[in-house]
Amino acid sequence: MNKRITFCSIYFFLSVLPTVSVFAQTKTVTDEDALYIRQIHDVALNQGRCYPWLYHLTKKIGARLSGSPQAAAAVEYSYQMLDTLGLDSVWLQPCMVPHWVRGDREIVRIAQSDMGSVELRALALGNSVGTGEAGIAAEVVAVMGIDELEKLGEAKLKGKIVFFNRPFDATKLNTFEAYGGAVDQRAYGASEAAKYGAVGVLVRSMASGLNDDPHTGGLLYKEGLPKIPACAISTNDAELLGRLLKKSPVKVYMRTTCQTLSDKPSFNVIGEIRGSERPDEIIVVGGHLDSWDVGEGAHDDGTGCVQSMDVLHIFKRLNYQPKRTIRCVLFMNEENGLRGGMTYADEAKRKGERHLAAIESDRGGFVPRGFTVDGEAAVFTEKFPAMQPWHAVLEPYGLHIKKGGGGADISPLKPQGVLLIGFEPDSQRYFDFHHTEVDNFEAVNRRELELGTAAMTSLIYLMDKYGLD
Amino acid sequence: MNKRITFCSIYFFLSVLPTVSVFAQTKTVTDEDALYIRQIHDVALNQGRCYPWLYHLTKKIGARLSGSPQAAAAVEYSYQMLDTLGLDSVWLQPCMVPHWVRGDREIVRIAQSDMGSVELRALALGNSVGTGEAGIAAEVVAVMGIDELEKLGEAKLKGKIVFFNRPFDATKLNTFEAYGGAVDQRAYGASEAAKYGAVGVLVRSMASGLNDDPHTGGLLYKEGLPKIPACAISTNDAELLGRLLKKSPVKVYMRTTCQTLSDKPSFNVIGEIRGSERPDEIIVVGGHLDSWDVGEGAHDDGTGCVQSMDVLHIFKRLNYQPKRTIRCVLFMNEENGLRGGMTYADEAKRKGERHLAAIESDRGGFVPRGFTVDGEAAVFTEKFPAMQPWHAVLEPYGLHIKKGGGGADISPLKPQGVLLIGFEPDSQRYFDFHHTEVDNFEAVNRRELELGTAAMTSLIYLMDKYGLD
Repeated sequence: MNKRITFCSIYFFLSVLPTVSVFAQTKTVTDEDALYIRQIHDVALNQGRCYPWLYHLTKKIGARLSGSPQAAAAVEYSYQMLDTLGLDSVWLQPCMVPHWVRGDREIVRIAQSDMGSVELRALALGNSVGTGEAGIAAEVVAVMGIDELEKLGEAKLKGKIVFFNRPFDATKLNTFEAYGGAVDQRAYGASEAAKYGAVGVLVRSMASGLNDDPHTGGLLYKEGLPKIPACAISTNDAELLGRLLKKSPVKVYMRTTCQTLSDKPSFNVIGEIRGSERPDEIIVVGGHLDSWDVGEGAHDDGTGCVQSMDVLHIFKRLNYQPKRTIRCVLFMNEENGLRGGMTYADEAKRKGERHLAAIESDRGGFVPRGFTVDGEAAVFTEKFPAMQPWHAVLEPYGLHIKKGGGGADISPLKPQGVLLIGFEPDSQRYFDFHHTEVDNFEAVNRRELELGTAAMTSLIYLMDKYGLD
Repeated sequence: MNKRITFCSIYFFLSVLPTVSVFAQTKTVTDEDALYIRQIHDVALNQGRCYPWLYHLTKKIGARLSGSPQAAAAVEYSYQMLDTLGLDSVWLQPCMVPHWVRGDREIVRIAQSDMGSVELRALALGNSVGTGEAGIAAEVVAVMGIDELEKLGEAKLKGKIVFFNRPFDATKLNTFEAYGGAVDQRAYGASEAAKYGAVGVLVRSMASGLNDDPHTGGLLYKEGLPKIPACAISTNDAELLGRLLKKSPVKVYMRTTCQTLSDKPSFNVIGEIRGSERPDEIIVVGGHLDSWDVGEGAHDDGTGCVQSMDVLHIFKRLNYQPKRTIRCVLFMNEENGLRGGMTYADEAKRKGERHLAAIESDRGGFVPRGFTVDGEAAVFTEKFPAMQPWHAVLEPYGLHIKKGGGGADISPLKPQGVLLIGFEPDSQRYFDFHHTEVDNFEAVNRRELELGTAAMTSLIYLMDKYGLD
């Protein structure tokens, strides 16, 4: 666009400040709220700390798999940063975490095919056993899903490597829905294939499009079945392998040396501003501090952590004195165990803490679209309607409040009657980065990240002020 | 996120297919429309051509400044691609375009300061004169805007290089508004400074944040004033220069060899599907084929071109027979002259063509948010309300229809009573790339681009079916 658009651009003005008395008809939001939410956005965009914090977490610390030295560094760093904010308390909550290590760089190679020998870009799936030093070599059988295995049976699968090749459905507008439609292959494929005597598994990466980046992520072994090794291969390589298999048999060699060591001690990192009127009503905001061991854990979930920390920073900078206690929780071990989330919920129960709501940011640091709300049926039915009048002050920022998922780390709080809220950014780019080498600082846009922080802070402001009755 | 979110993800489901009879109460959209718009999205996301076309336009052709060989190649390429679609006609519309060339790589150097000598990352502004082979060296005077010049006057400005250093206002939610608040410095700064005897101008790049990429863009010389050379410097370098100037005087050396050669012949590229019932009512959809001469002209405006071409492709693939004529226009020379847009409007007038509406995509290939609508007062008042019932089928895709700017290329059609519609993608990342070396193919996300195409196609479908009465 050239300068001509300048003259048009005054029309683009988003009228975020409502005219006086536009809210007279509603009981629960006021012009003052609209102004305060504007202030929250101004501070987030001009003085927010989430972006430089993210820089440190990704570039100076990097990938932070549970049990790794980097995960320990992330605990220390985020504790120290929270400790600079003048909060009422900052503490570490101990938990034991699994300690899985990737070992040598994976080798996955088409050993024999029409094309000869070709290296495939691969990452072992988290929790996977290794192949042993010698590796394994076997013929590949491609399937489009777990449901095809039973028909093939032992006759066709015994001694084979099963290749799960069902792609994302590109027509799903929300990419998490496409993920939900494919991820069973990664999570359960290995044990399901082992039922029929398969010796290994390859999974098409959980990615929105075609490219060269393999996506790792956790698998779950079913008890009582042999544990067989599993790798994700890039979507481009999945396409190649699929094409070759349509023409003639293909034999693949795979070698991984990943293993699960004994549990390590680690921590959730917690900081809070105590409420002035109802200190025993807690609003949690959090993300998870651990990441997979590739890339830098930027969108998953460095962004959620630094946004949650920045929520407290913004309230402090605005000298906001909450009625309720606002607590930032950086959970450990979301990726391969959820030990942090479970420990937090157990401790809350043990201490008899009362949580009003918990908000999790774990869908990337993209431009905010709103929030999705979950809870036990009675809790949801009672509390969700109380949030609806808030649309009047959130819609000018393009934010909705809808029924939907909360977040993995906060999910163990659900039985305690806590309203679970998932921060929802735009989903289009998330599965370009998720669990890959390219989930790095450069993949995060500063303004998008900061607007997300502002959205979360705004919701918490409203929740603190009005409660959920 | 790990597999736990899988189970939450069913809540994310966007209910894009309305339940039967939800539109019974409206006159102008039907369940059939909702289904057709779903089909448009399915085709765009599964079989769209915009992304491979963009690859060719950016990676194989590259930057396409008016008058350059690459601009000629882009004309030929887009003509050939439109010609593959089985349209009713594809043609070139001649126009003469300015031919500005950048010359040698710019040198902008702090020649003397507290820090000694420092190179600044700079790009000459489009239309700027050069400094001459020897370059110029002068003391720098920093201002935050044109309004400060008068007070300083000749006494302070004669023989100096004026440095315009007002940044974007980060608190504007829509970055085009921030651009609108700063771009007068780039467009008019040189002539305004020349009034007081300045010999050169440096402008802080029109960018959302701090980084090392200088942003070029057009300046306008005012008649009757000396033409002095002007460069943009990166926002990081603008910060540095601003800091140095607060401490002590700074002398800068600048050398540019840009020049304006004589006009060159070029073309708008046009393809259309003739309407079956009202062939004389034309709906235009377009972008601009030219770009600045740095980077690859991806978001500005390769994306708008390939989206507009893909609109016709999608209609053909769906065997859609429009009532009205749907015409794709790829305008030449938006960046430094608007000759294509003016030629198109002149020719339309000369031929007595009747345009119902013109839609331009020239705000980047980001995730779609909707459309902004403009027109002569009487036209707007009559036609804008006719679009409002369409929200029922567009909102499930997150699309709004609001008052706002149309687009530079289509603006000359306004006096002919044409409704002007600007496609509006999310604005957050646009001014990270605009007019820079990093406006390249890699900066475009495939799904975001394709969703934009689908949004544009959907609007045109509704407009073709229902008109604007």
